[in-house]
Amino acid sequence: MASELEPAVREALANAVGADGLLIGAAQREAYARDNSGRRFLPWAVALPATAEQVAGVLRVCHQAAIPVIPRGAGTGCVGGGLAVQGGVVLSTQRLNRILAVEPADRLAVVEPGVVHGELKERLAAHGLFWPPEPSSSRSCTIGGNLAMCSAGPNAVRYGVTRHWVLGLTVLLADGTRMRVGGYTTKGVVGYDLTQLLIGSEGTLAVVVEAILKLAPVPEARRTLRIVFRDMEQAALAVAGVMGRGEPPSALEFLDPAALALLRGSGAGIECHPEGQALLLAEVEGTLEEVDRKANGLRERLLVFDPLEAVVAVSEQESKKIWSARYALSPTLTRLAPRRINEDVVVPVSRLAALVAGLAVIAKETGVPIVSFGHAGNGNIHVNLLTDPADPTQERKVVGALDRVFDLVLQLNGTLSGEHGVGIMKRDYIARELDPGALALQTRIKQLFDPRNILNPGKIFPVLHH
Amino acid sequence: MASELEPAVREALANAVGADGLLIGAAQREAYARDNSGRRFLPWAVALPATAEQVAGVLRVCHQAAIPVIPRGAGTGCVGGGLAVQGGVVLSTQRLNRILAVEPADRLAVVEPGVVHGELKERLAAHGLFWPPEPSSSRSCTIGGNLAMCSAGPNAVRYGVTRHWVLGLTVLLADGTRMRVGGYTTKGVVGYDLTQLLIGSEGTLAVVVEAILKLAPVPEARRTLRIVFRDMEQAALAVAGVMGRGEPPSALEFLDPAALALLRGSGAGIECHPEGQALLLAEVEGTLEEVDRKANGLRERLLVFDPLEAVVAVSEQESKKIWSARYALSPTLTRLAPRRINEDVVVPVSRLAALVAGLAVIAKETGVPIVSFGHAGNGNIHVNLLTDPADPTQERKVVGALDRVFDLVLQLNGTLSGEHGVGIMKRDYIARELDPGALALQTRIKQLFDPRNILNPGKIFPVLHH
Repeated sequence: MASELEPAVREALANAVGADGLLIGAAQREAYARDNSGRRFLPWAVALPATAEQVAGVLRVCHQAAIPVIPRGAGTGCVGGGLAVQGGVVLSTQRLNRILAVEPADRLAVVEPGVVHGELKERLAAHGLFWPPEPSSSRSCTIGGNLAMCSAGPNAVRYGVTRHWVLGLTVLLADGTRMRVGGYTTKGVVGYDLTQLLIGSEGTLAVVVEAILKLAPVPEARRTLRIVFRDMEQAALAVAGVMGRGEPPSALEFLDPAALALLRGSGAGIECHPEGQALLLAEVEGTLEEVDRKANGLRERLLVFDPLEAVVAVSEQESKKIWSARYALSPTLTRLAPRRINEDVVVPVSRLAALVAGLAVIAKETGVPIVSFGHAGNGNIHVNLLTDPADPTQERKVVGALDRVFDLVLQLNGTLSGEHGVGIMKRDYIARELDPGALALQTRIKQLFDPRNILNPGKIFPVLHH
Repeated sequence: MASELEPAVREALANAVGADGLLIGAAQREAYARDNSGRRFLPWAVALPATAEQVAGVLRVCHQAAIPVIPRGAGTGCVGGGLAVQGGVVLSTQRLNRILAVEPADRLAVVEPGVVHGELKERLAAHGLFWPPEPSSSRSCTIGGNLAMCSAGPNAVRYGVTRHWVLGLTVLLADGTRMRVGGYTTKGVVGYDLTQLLIGSEGTLAVVVEAILKLAPVPEARRTLRIVFRDMEQAALAVAGVMGRGEPPSALEFLDPAALALLRGSGAGIECHPEGQALLLAEVEGTLEEVDRKANGLRERLLVFDPLEAVVAVSEQESKKIWSARYALSPTLTRLAPRRINEDVVVPVSRLAALVAGLAVIAKETGVPIVSFGHAGNGNIHVNLLTDPADPTQERKVVGALDRVFDLVLQLNGTLSGEHGVGIMKRDYIARELDPGALALQTRIKQLFDPRNILNPGKIFPVLHH
């Protein structure tokens, strides 16, 4: 398929980013047509700006021509947020990948949006610092993507989410105008907080070209605990018990029976009591002196909930093995069920047991296998609805099951997404969760920032009124 | 002075809140005419709604009649945020003071805006939990005021600011429409984050009637350290050193020579090396087992910066005495210089030494005495410009000095306010700090939420274009 860009626009874009910064060939564009949602939309072109000025150039051209611009990091997103669903130009941040400053005394780093999360992590480690948000795609995902989706990962139990770790942004508005919001300080209340409005806006309000990130000190030591329960309900009660009092662990993950079966079958060599039907992974951190005491303290608190086993993984190696197995779950599931629906609902921790019980009922009644795991300490559960490609009726069944999952989550005072975002995968559902007045205000804020609707159109909102 | 409300409006308001919920008498209104800014504006009436429905009634009447509505907590604000600068109806939250729920497993509390901070603290302590933002006015200020100004206090060094500790809000829009934003979960990325937009908006966008607060566990133990330096520069370097690596203390306050002199003269009985010209107060927290080790570890890190003395206050009583003296500073200054200008600028921690040196130069060159103290760990300094009421030229000199203080702060990559807000006291300065595009977008967001400009008009923005 040929690019649908008019020659004049194509030329203007090439002028903006240089000839080698514009991908027009179908094969080149194909590399930017997918993400982790399993959907495919071929963009008309891909721009690879290397400077903020080049980003502004792309925006000016597209604003003028009313062409969609789709900001894109590493394409690790789960909801199609970086896909060209209405055609247009994918604006890749891959060349905007400089770490501009690390300031230890101010506990901040200044980065471009295309910096890979794991590379920043390595760089900061030399200063004894880290940026707490850490999605499981850390090795490949970009900071820009983390900001766009407010994706936080397991650390959120202790450290809070992405938006808590951003001090300021430099962004470009739809017409290419540069705008600075926030700044270099950890406190600041001058005017409305546009920084926070932009984080999690999925590239629909502006394009980030620079971010000032707040950092935390790397803890001296960590210990991982493996706690195995007879059933999910008991594991869920244990999570509520642990979160109800005392210092939270730095991570508290769980795996349901199906996820546990995958783990057992993965050959990763994870030991686990054979009768176990639910696994909790907990991590504590602190100084070398205190970390074992903390781990044992947490273990004591968990023993109250009568687990089959509760083991403090003493070796760094065993701990790494456990976490690798946890991180391998999502790719494993994608291999098993390429068209799986991967949701990341959240409920208050006290409602986890009700969620788990409700998911079992839905799986049974609809015949759709459900595999759940995730950030139990936040009540943030990755619910995977598996589809059998050989069964033509399955697609309809899955949609029905998903519908019931969302209803259940909202009944339990939860939210449809904890960190994956809305994109195109959940846009038809958000009106169920959001207050109608709040949704209306959001669409009007979108119009305020982007009156020509060129920034990532078709994302988040079901229908945009112009 | 009689109320300027038309009889029909007065009657409609009385219908909305009940006769005893509407204060019309001049003496009654006088009690709502001031705050901690030293300014006075007599409202036309004061409404005391006891339910969200009554708040909606007040808003409907005022929206219809285009009368300003000024939401007000306890009147402890420093920038005139709760004053009726354009006349209108003060909407006091004092009767909206119920703690609606405390959910330990979910680490959340649901409160009305008029709940007094200190009362919530007491109630939560029974569950081993607390709400980390804690302005020094905790005993009297309200949660609604904390949310409106995003005022965080000394805990922010470790815990972050108010906006990090709010999960959701129920608000009423200018016309009385109810709107729910956020929710009950610690993660959530469905749509734009209006919760964060509303926090810190100083009552100009909506009126909060219910807030879902995120809680943290109360640490088992705390230790306070008193560290005395020969001069401010050395103290500032020590702050940067401590913040540059390792776990941050839970608070890190400083007092400059003038503040220290006040403390010595206060009769509070604070011991302090006689040659000391700068005082740091640090607090560490943790389990009973670890807290002394942590305190001594911090002391070791501070010794590197050659203090005159560095004492870990072992007794709870001595610690309380030190903190009381710190908290007494602001009221003491108000007594000494009732028309003092009390700013709360912020600079990156690495620039504290430059700020301190610059303030000394400004004080010397302008002849305006400056007393500084505050949250050094965040670079958030309360800069007090003292005015001599007996000197008629002083007012002009103070304005000139303030001007230079703000220029200095912005040069150092700082912000004009860390937690006091803008209100009327800083509205003429914010254009110096904010990007022009960001300021323009903010005024348009204000118009979007409040097209008739009835919600706290005249605050934050220098001029509003209609």
